[in-house]
Amino acid sequence: MQEVISAIRKAKSAIILTHMDPDGDAIGSMIAVHLALKEMGKRTSMYCKDPVPEMYNFLPESGKVKDSLNGGKYDIAIAVDCGDSKRVEGGIDLKGLAGTVINIDHHPDNTKFGDINLIEKISSVSEILFKLFKKMRLKMSQDIAVCLYAGIMTDTGNFRYDYTTPETLLIAASLAKAGAEISRIAMAVYETKTLSSVRILGAAMYRLETSQSGHVAWTVLPKQLMDSLGAKSEDLTGLVDQIRTIKGVEVAILFREEDDGIKVNFRSKFKANVSDIAKALGGGGHIRASGAIMQGTLEEVKEKVLAEVFKVIK
Amino acid sequence: MQEVISAIRKAKSAIILTHMDPDGDAIGSMIAVHLALKEMGKRTSMYCKDPVPEMYNFLPESGKVKDSLNGGKYDIAIAVDCGDSKRVEGGIDLKGLAGTVINIDHHPDNTKFGDINLIEKISSVSEILFKLFKKMRLKMSQDIAVCLYAGIMTDTGNFRYDYTTPETLLIAASLAKAGAEISRIAMAVYETKTLSSVRILGAAMYRLETSQSGHVAWTVLPKQLMDSLGAKSEDLTGLVDQIRTIKGVEVAILFREEDDGIKVNFRSKFKANVSDIAKALGGGGHIRASGAIMQGTLEEVKEKVLAEVFKVIK
Repeated sequence: MQEVISAIRKAKSAIILTHMDPDGDAIGSMIAVHLALKEMGKRTSMYCKDPVPEMYNFLPESGKVKDSLNGGKYDIAIAVDCGDSKRVEGGIDLKGLAGTVINIDHHPDNTKFGDINLIEKISSVSEILFKLFKKMRLKMSQDIAVCLYAGIMTDTGNFRYDYTTPETLLIAASLAKAGAEISRIAMAVYETKTLSSVRILGAAMYRLETSQSGHVAWTVLPKQLMDSLGAKSEDLTGLVDQIRTIKGVEVAILFREEDDGIKVNFRSKFKANVSDIAKALGGGGHIRASGAIMQGTLEEVKEKVLAEVFKVIK
Repeated sequence: MQEVISAIRKAKSAIILTHMDPDGDAIGSMIAVHLALKEMGKRTSMYCKDPVPEMYNFLPESGKVKDSLNGGKYDIAIAVDCGDSKRVEGGIDLKGLAGTVINIDHHPDNTKFGDINLIEKISSVSEILFKLFKKMRLKMSQDIAVCLYAGIMTDTGNFRYDYTTPETLLIAASLAKAGAEISRIAMAVYETKTLSSVRILGAAMYRLETSQSGHVAWTVLPKQLMDSLGAKSEDLTGLVDQIRTIKGVEVAILFREEDDGIKVNFRSKFKANVSDIAKALGGGGHIRASGAIMQGTLEEVKEKVLAEVFKVIK
């Protein structure tokens, strides 16, 4: 931490980068570093390959995040929330951007790609930054507090996941005291769902089917139904995870009819390896989250998939 | 607060009561008082007209909550989370149960029905109890911490509603330090949904209606639909909050047909005062969360309620 502080203090210019497909901790911590360095009188830029998701537009200076590099050189490059330098973007040469690369992250499998690596396995990069700024005796402005609060809140699933510690809550309280408005931030992030996403979730849950034991649960979304509710593919984000939250469900499956075939998404809770199941059906993924695109009618695909799943769990 | 402490210290026996159709704060704070008094060597009973919802069964001694009175007499009766003595149950004569009635509550429109009234307009009764127990220098056991954490967590909508203050988070942190396991409690409450609760959520969202502007959204659940999905009253917990999560929705309303009338629940986001709306309809509650029980057909009640809501926001 002391090394990071020295490097920041010495630098006159900095570029702050985060991973593609950014989440709340990525955006929140990137902007927090930008604001802190700006307050210290440094010239800064922010870079993310993908645009800031709409729900994070309320964050201060979120409009200043760039999706391209202007070829400039910086004294330091600070990558936040990137377990691997490839997460920033395949093509970027971090070492070519700046004299010193600082890697601030909380992923347990971080590759330590920086010249200086500040890795702590806690809830979020935002929580690491809170401690860093404290050590730097930086005045916690309201804007910085809002960014860090948003980062901690989103990366802990709103204070639910199991790395939410008493200290995480203490830090959140401290940020709230510094001006992060708890309910406004929660509302901005969690309460801006589209009507079509809520309706398609409703249809999916209403149509839910389960195996006799209740260990396997699935729902089928024909294209016609999605069209009638005005639902788009992005409206289905998180839907299969919601199926998994049901008591007793070990494997959750979402079947959706798209133009290029039937998309099948799998999630498992504790036991089943859905990566193997997806592979057997021509797809792929992880043990707990996988998928496949299949051809045939919804009925045919459903039958084939369930037969494969029932080999493992019924 | 000092009066409450004296009354508790003097009493040898106590009955603790909470409102019908109990939520997490009702059950959590009732059990917390029971455990605290038990630790002080007092004889206690707990009463709630309706059973403890399944998702709160993980709370210690939740099995000891009774749904009938045995005709016994107590030195004190402590009502928690009841804005009005009628919320306990129409038929019970609190003053006949005990020499002294203590009313501990956080509803702004509390009718002060107790001999001693401890009313604080903060997040939850559990938060009031934390301060009370602190003042009493009571040792915070893990069991009590779990109950109070569950009460605060649920009544703040998992630290999202606008009466979640920095102090609320500090208290939650303190309870977590005292042994309340954050993620276990969140999982128990939020991630062990029953199939019927997911199906009724689906039906509710699928049937969602909105005003032309999209500022008011509501859903209507006829008894027949609930019965056909095997849904119970407790399966509807949080449903009206989910309606509010839609972008642009300022007032969310849930209409449900029950044996004793049409239950109407209101939530508001930033502007509308749904406490006033509920009062105009014979109900009560908070600015952001309120409710009423009304008589008539679903159609009649819906028309009457929407007319009242549309006076404020369309």
